[in-house]
Amino acid sequence: MNVEIIAIGDEILLGQILDSNSHWIARKMAEIGTPVKYFSVISDKEDVIHEAFAVAYRRSDVVLITGGLGPTDDDRTKGILAKFFNLPLTFRNDILIQVKEHYKNSQLKFSDTSREQAEFPAGATAIKNSHGTAPGIWIEREGHFFIAMPGVPSEMMGMMNDFVIPKIVAKQYGPITLFRTLNTYGIIEASLYEKLDNRREIREYVGLAFLPSFNGVKLRITAEGKDKPHLEARLDRAESLIREKIEKYIVGVGENLSLEKTVGEKLLDLRNKLAVAESCTAGFLSKRLTDISGSSGFFERGFVTYSNEAKNEMLGVPMDLIERHGAVSSEVAEAMAKGVLKNSRADVAISITGVAGPTGGTEEKPVGLVYIGYADSSRCIHKKCTFGKNRTINRDRSVSTALMLLLNQLQKQDDDFELILT
Amino acid sequence: MNVEIIAIGDEILLGQILDSNSHWIARKMAEIGTPVKYFSVISDKEDVIHEAFAVAYRRSDVVLITGGLGPTDDDRTKGILAKFFNLPLTFRNDILIQVKEHYKNSQLKFSDTSREQAEFPAGATAIKNSHGTAPGIWIEREGHFFIAMPGVPSEMMGMMNDFVIPKIVAKQYGPITLFRTLNTYGIIEASLYEKLDNRREIREYVGLAFLPSFNGVKLRITAEGKDKPHLEARLDRAESLIREKIEKYIVGVGENLSLEKTVGEKLLDLRNKLAVAESCTAGFLSKRLTDISGSSGFFERGFVTYSNEAKNEMLGVPMDLIERHGAVSSEVAEAMAKGVLKNSRADVAISITGVAGPTGGTEEKPVGLVYIGYADSSRCIHKKCTFGKNRTINRDRSVSTALMLLLNQLQKQDDDFELILT
Repeated sequence: MNVEIIAIGDEILLGQILDSNSHWIARKMAEIGTPVKYFSVISDKEDVIHEAFAVAYRRSDVVLITGGLGPTDDDRTKGILAKFFNLPLTFRNDILIQVKEHYKNSQLKFSDTSREQAEFPAGATAIKNSHGTAPGIWIEREGHFFIAMPGVPSEMMGMMNDFVIPKIVAKQYGPITLFRTLNTYGIIEASLYEKLDNRREIREYVGLAFLPSFNGVKLRITAEGKDKPHLEARLDRAESLIREKIEKYIVGVGENLSLEKTVGEKLLDLRNKLAVAESCTAGFLSKRLTDISGSSGFFERGFVTYSNEAKNEMLGVPMDLIERHGAVSSEVAEAMAKGVLKNSRADVAISITGVAGPTGGTEEKPVGLVYIGYADSSRCIHKKCTFGKNRTINRDRSVSTALMLLLNQLQKQDDDFELILT
Repeated sequence: MNVEIIAIGDEILLGQILDSNSHWIARKMAEIGTPVKYFSVISDKEDVIHEAFAVAYRRSDVVLITGGLGPTDDDRTKGILAKFFNLPLTFRNDILIQVKEHYKNSQLKFSDTSREQAEFPAGATAIKNSHGTAPGIWIEREGHFFIAMPGVPSEMMGMMNDFVIPKIVAKQYGPITLFRTLNTYGIIEASLYEKLDNRREIREYVGLAFLPSFNGVKLRITAEGKDKPHLEARLDRAESLIREKIEKYIVGVGENLSLEKTVGEKLLDLRNKLAVAESCTAGFLSKRLTDISGSSGFFERGFVTYSNEAKNEMLGVPMDLIERHGAVSSEVAEAMAKGVLKNSRADVAISITGVAGPTGGTEEKPVGLVYIGYADSSRCIHKKCTFGKNRTINRDRSVSTALMLLLNQLQKQDDDFELILT
């Protein structure tokens, strides 16, 4: 089954909104074994939308459309879809009742603009919107499924989970694609590639791809066919071939297995509680660690010590230490980590202090210089990192490197792991 | 000039990586007046890439390609591009020197795999990669520009800023498109639409679009033409027509003007320092506030009080208050905000406590229940919010609502602003 996503909206093309919907949908479709073949983002001009529908009708079986279902007149998806499939818009009282119900529950004033949401393409199936007003639209025509959903993520996700995915699964046919992701860290892509000198044998069983990121290189293996147990066996065989060569770099298996999840599980295993102190990343590490449900089992507290006074008053870092070495120094990073242990109920502590940029750098302490500290009851270490000039990237890499250092310490591996440089 | 982005990579189609590159490129292209007309994401299969290049050649003048330039054999962009334009790959010693230089600077081992990066399409321009090894590729053919860049964001961004954007600006022709974004908050899309009953007049000057998000509804106005001052005048006229109707909901003007930036500027204006305490959002509010360069001018410190003990020990919230009302309560939210003021050097404080979910809810305190506290030297208030069941969305909305409450208090407007429900 060929699956395609079309996201409609000038706000995405203008770079004002990041299209996280397509990413989410793509992951869901991959999970059910029918990965997406094409994504496109197009403007909300009628001719462009019409042309995109025509192309999608030719090349795809399932077409998932997001955006342009709202109540204002720059929302054109419903009208164009009706025209494309030659279905007249008719007034649907059942939809009106649902829309009114939603307005009532949300304590919003119902208006004439909202009333138009009850106009619906005749013969199409309305998909209930549990998180908003505009219903989704499901149209079937000669084996093609066109599914239009709102661009608001919560509304789209609700429709996908409750209605669209179960319905697609029920209609699936043809070969499926299974994949598995092996997450590595502490090694760069080119080195990993060379260590895996049995690539030819691996590729007898699966497709193999290398996916570098600041969080380590992921290896994705893919098997396509009709028989699920057979595909699983091919993935198993390929995984053991990979493990033969690079076992020690693999931190976990799973598409959604983030570094923070691996760290969290390790902390839970060890029954260790973690607390952190952050200067340049200012809460980002805490945020990442608590993205995971159940993080209260291992995360105890965080200190966002943005000012020098905060480092002194919250963590007991001596002011003269800061003055002598600077807030961005190995000495302060270690003192912060020790201060976390003293001022929390945690067993292990991580600290981050650095020059995130783009301003604030000096010759001696340039933008991108970051120190990460680690402390437990028996030891305290630090790691010096030199990243680039981009504030966002520096903060991101600081958090990832801190998580890697922590994981490394929890696994009592070699201290001096190679930093991911891709 | 028609501009198109093609992102290559199965990892995006499988939902493993979010394509933030296209978003960034789109914003840059919009800033120089030639917004992107199409984005697509395609797999790294040869026939699919070839077909996408053919479609792009037909419909676009500038084609920006990301991904598939790395050293491993699942990286196919260079070879396919060479074939598409019928340019043989030749060995370029100048590129080899640059690649070797990068390996040396990064203290990486140079390998034969890396040597292949010096093979380059004859006649194409190599774009220097200041952040990695693979050079970018610039090909011109009959007025079409094909530009291939690595998928690693820092490498792509470096090439765009240093080489691609200046070169495109030098070659620009035809009409340009200017746009302006008015950021509103405290009002839902449908109400905004109805208050703007002069839409017809506005649209005599500009295109008008409504962009709802958890951070408020943005109004985007667009003017297309050749004469920049004339386009600016049309935007000015439209802006004043909009302000006539909804002045009080507009918090700022600017494409990249986020809520946190508006809050930060207001705090700097008032010379107020902010400190925050977070439970369920656990650092996310601090992170958002410090995304902005220069945030040390207004952000003083943060308390990530994830456990009850942390609320008590870091902020002095009495344990019996937590036991009596629960950690998620208006009483604790207000006590947290007051505790922030007592335990920091800040003038204003914000606190967040809630049930992020997906587990941990009760009948009385369901998932999605969040209390936000605000305190300054003269007053302390709270706001009760009931969001949905999704952890990620709940944390996102909690942060946005906290920023809106803070902005509202700083502007000394009506306490009881309407929560964004779209």
